[in-house]
Amino acid sequence: MMRKHSLELKPIGIIHSPYKNTRAAPYQGYRSEEISHIEVFKEFEEGLKDIEDFSHIIVIYWFHKYQGYHLLVKTPWDDSMHGLFTTRSPHRPCPLGLTVVELVAREKNILKVKGLDAIDGTPLLDIKPYIPEVDERSIVKFGWLEGKLRKERC
Amino acid sequence: MMRKHSLELKPIGIIHSPYKNTRAAPYQGYRSEEISHIEVFKEFEEGLKDIEDFSHIIVIYWFHKYQGYHLLVKTPWDDSMHGLFTTRSPHRPCPLGLTVVELVAREKNILKVKGLDAIDGTPLLDIKPYIPEVDERSIVKFGWLEGKLRKERC
Repeated sequence: MMRKHSLELKPIGIIHSPYKNTRAAPYQGYRSEEISHIEVFKEFEEGLKDIEDFSHIIVIYWFHKYQGYHLLVKTPWDDSMHGLFTTRSPHRPCPLGLTVVELVAREKNILKVKGLDAIDGTPLLDIKPYIPEVDERSIVKFGWLEGKLRKERC
Repeated sequence: MMRKHSLELKPIGIIHSPYKNTRAAPYQGYRSEEISHIEVFKEFEEGLKDIEDFSHIIVIYWFHKYQGYHLLVKTPWDDSMHGLFTTRSPHRPCPLGLTVVELVAREKNILKVKGLDAIDGTPLLDIKPYIPEVDERSIVKFGWLEGKLRKERC
């Protein structure tokens, strides 16, 4: 079986962030007003053409500061054990982070963004346009997380 | 500089899909009623605990059938050349696919989903809960793509 073979990725950039370590990062950055700078390596800059016309982008990155994982996890939101794949824990078998961020400005290969909770130095893997028609769903239930995010964390 | 070093991923599952090759797959699966089956490898099954309480999940996968990329691309939506990172083209430096899908049913380590446009045999990398409060933005502009998706493709 070939299916479990390793796959190899090379970063397309690096994230410069005010969060210098894992303790400093918020649980979800979407509420934060902090600014991060996404440096897309020069050789990929052409791929950013007209990205400044988009108000939001999806950023995919590598959780480089988080090692290992458990399949059942406790989160900041309650005392129960939850299936890892029903959480946004950064400790995952494939340590891929995903955040929808506001694109505040662009200067050449640098994107100034708001709402990104990645640690300083995080490897950038991909940027995709955020398109409500594609990425949003109108009728949604979200299990144990419902009502949790508006409350204080435990 | 360490920053451009390769990163290694191991799939957590495999996607069984009605789309047997790249020509068969829709440009965006979110409109499709077709059912795909996501097989999460047995060793990760515990991480799916209570996922059936979620109506939608974010699926991240490896575009295994798409080789190479260009930084400027033409899409099915118009005749202009667009920056790759303003498109959802599967030809990307890091070939990561991302789709929000409807979770129709779960049986043990198999998730039956609707709206996934991945090719049969696609390596599964991650599953995250879809949470409107985290993943949706209320005021959005999306550049050249605005108004395009409701129209017929060129």
